[in-house]
Amino acid sequence: MGKEASRKLEWRINVSDGVSERLEPETGAILRAWTWFKRLMLGGFILKICKFLEKAWNLAVDEPKKVIHGLKVGLAISLVSLFYYMRPLYDGVGGNAMWAVMTVVVVFESSVGATLGKCINRAIGTFLAGSLGVGVHWIAFHSGKNLEPIVLGISLFLLASAATFSRFMPTIKARFDYGIMIFILTFSLVSVSGYRVDKLLELAQQRLSTIAIGASICIIISMLFCPMWAGDELHLLICQNLEKLAHSLDECVVEYFRHNKTSTAKDEACSKKMKGYRCALNSKATEELKANFARWEPAHGRFSFRHPWKQYLKIGASIRNCAYCIETLHGCVDSETQAPPHLKRHLNNICMRLSSSSSNVLQELAFALKTMKQSSKINLSVGEMNFAVQELKHALISLPNHNISIKNPSPSTVEASGNCNTEPITSIRASSSFMEILPLATLASLLIENAAKIEVIVNGVNELAVLAEFKPTTDNKKSKSNQSPKKLTSENQDPETVKIPQKV
Amino acid sequence: MGKEASRKLEWRINVSDGVSERLEPETGAILRAWTWFKRLMLGGFILKICKFLEKAWNLAVDEPKKVIHGLKVGLAISLVSLFYYMRPLYDGVGGNAMWAVMTVVVVFESSVGATLGKCINRAIGTFLAGSLGVGVHWIAFHSGKNLEPIVLGISLFLLASAATFSRFMPTIKARFDYGIMIFILTFSLVSVSGYRVDKLLELAQQRLSTIAIGASICIIISMLFCPMWAGDELHLLICQNLEKLAHSLDECVVEYFRHNKTSTAKDEACSKKMKGYRCALNSKATEELKANFARWEPAHGRFSFRHPWKQYLKIGASIRNCAYCIETLHGCVDSETQAPPHLKRHLNNICMRLSSSSSNVLQELAFALKTMKQSSKINLSVGEMNFAVQELKHALISLPNHNISIKNPSPSTVEASGNCNTEPITSIRASSSFMEILPLATLASLLIENAAKIEVIVNGVNELAVLAEFKPTTDNKKSKSNQSPKKLTSENQDPETVKIPQKV
Repeated sequence: MGKEASRKLEWRINVSDGVSERLEPETGAILRAWTWFKRLMLGGFILKICKFLEKAWNLAVDEPKKVIHGLKVGLAISLVSLFYYMRPLYDGVGGNAMWAVMTVVVVFESSVGATLGKCINRAIGTFLAGSLGVGVHWIAFHSGKNLEPIVLGISLFLLASAATFSRFMPTIKARFDYGIMIFILTFSLVSVSGYRVDKLLELAQQRLSTIAIGASICIIISMLFCPMWAGDELHLLICQNLEKLAHSLDECVVEYFRHNKTSTAKDEACSKKMKGYRCALNSKATEELKANFARWEPAHGRFSFRHPWKQYLKIGASIRNCAYCIETLHGCVDSETQAPPHLKRHLNNICMRLSSSSSNVLQELAFALKTMKQSSKINLSVGEMNFAVQELKHALISLPNHNISIKNPSPSTVEASGNCNTEPITSIRASSSFMEILPLATLASLLIENAAKIEVIVNGVNELAVLAEFKPTTDNKKSKSNQSPKKLTSENQDPETVKIPQKV
Repeated sequence: MGKEASRKLEWRINVSDGVSERLEPETGAILRAWTWFKRLMLGGFILKICKFLEKAWNLAVDEPKKVIHGLKVGLAISLVSLFYYMRPLYDGVGGNAMWAVMTVVVVFESSVGATLGKCINRAIGTFLAGSLGVGVHWIAFHSGKNLEPIVLGISLFLLASAATFSRFMPTIKARFDYGIMIFILTFSLVSVSGYRVDKLLELAQQRLSTIAIGASICIIISMLFCPMWAGDELHLLICQNLEKLAHSLDECVVEYFRHNKTSTAKDEACSKKMKGYRCALNSKATEELKANFARWEPAHGRFSFRHPWKQYLKIGASIRNCAYCIETLHGCVDSETQAPPHLKRHLNNICMRLSSSSSNVLQELAFALKTMKQSSKINLSVGEMNFAVQELKHALISLPNHNISIKNPSPSTVEASGNCNTEPITSIRASSSFMEILPLATLASLLIENAAKIEVIVNGVNELAVLAEFKPTTDNKKSKSNQSPKKLTSENQDPETVKIPQKV
């Protein structure tokens, strides 16, 4: 080692005092830096890949459906590639096997509805554009040698422009976006390539048949092996959002009235539950997409061909309205100003009753949707919720008096009203309690508003039950509680003209 | 006419009393019904087409950019079709002109970022899959005649499955979804068609060059003729949402305190303004899409290549949070329970001041974003808003006392507190005013919460100003008001320890 080192070339510089100084081996330093950099990069790269694989693994464990979709696509492509391997098949489609492969890759989507929609779009788009292309080509051919490219060029420009613009129309975009793209593609290929290829019709027929082969492979595989129906997913999404709202509402109010706010493992689970409503906040795009796909799907399971998917969007919108309310409610829970304990105790039970009856309604709705049966208890639950609303209103009406009488039996109140000079003192006392009451009052008022919004969801689900002809429940085992039927009457009470209960 | 009628065949039936009755000419009725039905259908169809055209016309008038995009696509396709018409060009790409047309149709999107992203995705996907396909083909070729299709089939199945699964990963989906699809497509075509075509490399080179031609036509046209930058659109969207929030907030509070609620034409305009916040509620998907596209865009206008587009998403999220709050506020305005006029009068000015100062902050932010300059007045505006929050809190603290003293100078209060037996009377009197106060209290509390949420937006915009290096404003002409600087100090006041002003 020592010998090797002594053999190395050294750079020396003559310094002013006559002594030469050894220059630092910079190239060595650069080399080392480079090695270090390379290792770091490689390490970073490997680390990134590891993280990516870990994420992929987690995704696969969480949603095995996505792995299954991957395998289905692999299977479809392997199947369609047989057209290349087997000479009779290859010759059968006149060397156009490429179009079958392309169709499979482009058309195969994760849900049956999306795949079917794309297949139908592709078929119709290809057919229409093909016919139109042949027509335009015929006209161009008969308008003379000189005019031919002009006619073709102008028709191509006009049709492509108009079709592209039409893709911006919301109704077209929702259902036929892909079809229009295929229309433009096919029309350009047919009208232009027709300029060279004379056997236009034969070519068109071959392409259509290969597309049909690819499309049918896609449809068969996506419908036969673990089919994933967009309709099922939409249905499940709405049910889950209802349940999440119910949990969030419950947890939110429980959290507000909790005495001991220490963070334990259980609390974290609660806080996760509490934030469940956020899924509903941003699910609009997903719901619309799934509803669009679901409309292409044939009858399957409990859903008929013309299942009212649009009604799900209405229900989704009213769920979102409710979620906005819970989002604001959530703000109350996190609020720094907290009502004094005795006040909280006063409203604790009744707020909890309202929130639990509200979440009960939501869960009833979720259950009714899940089983697709008319809930026999929904009217009872709504009645209970409305009764709780009235109770809360009464409790609020009795609040200021109650509050003062609990905390300050009489002296200061008597003094204050007996003597006008002491008014500022009462003002501060009474008012400080009012200011403290504010978040609690907001919570109560939001709970009341939320109940009204839940009734909109109930109406939406009832409409769906009529449209989709939900069967009435015959099973009475599942009724969890024995509510007294007289509570139902409160449903019809006018909130404005309600009487104050005697005990207040 | 009469003759013709008499010549018609008649169906007669023998009725029990020996007289034959003439049967109604059902076929004629059916025919008439059919004609009527046909006319109706045709009319309906024509009506539908007319409606569609009207909608298209309105869309074109509202957003001429979309028409321009259509014309650009038409131009690009016409240009690329020249490769078919002109023999030297056609021969130059070895008859593969089809791929150039296909590239243009598939890749041309309305924003530059989306087009660029797709082009880059297509290029990288094609290149990677092509190389890998050739590699796999080489391995298969050298593993013997029998093993060749097995090696190819298995590699195709595995790669297609894995690649399809990877499209579900959020990070991949956001930026490389299209690239992965092209990867699968090219890999299948290359690895499988390689089984037949020996001139694989030549073919790959020709396809790459045609794709390059198509892509460059798209990029040039989309960037040179009226370019539509996704970044610009995102920037504008955020600015507009800020402005809409400001208007909604203002209108909401004005509407609540309006005395005369009759619906006139002006009111309708107001109500439209009031609902502007709803655009912000559902813009998440659009914002994410545009931010993803914007990241592909080169430096343009005031935006550098690495403009912090992600920060816009953060600002968008906090705007949405604010919009949820305004949605609940909107519920208060529509609420049936209205606070008594004297109470409203008490809080009218201060609520209006808070809402207008809040909306002022939002408009300042929108202006700062629009001009991309650090606002010199934003701190002042935020200070004003916080001062208004404190004022509102004081007003709320003084409310119950104020309320009672205005409406009922002393008699019943004295009676009530002097004599315990009359307590129920006070309870109802005082409490009824509390119940009436509830929506007003909720409004106030939501306005206070909203101010806190606006501060989050302010922080988001400030971060953006640092990241994107906004220039400080030098223009002092635009300062509208001469606020006293001491108002700024209220910003630092702790809301919990605030003192009650002397005059209360």
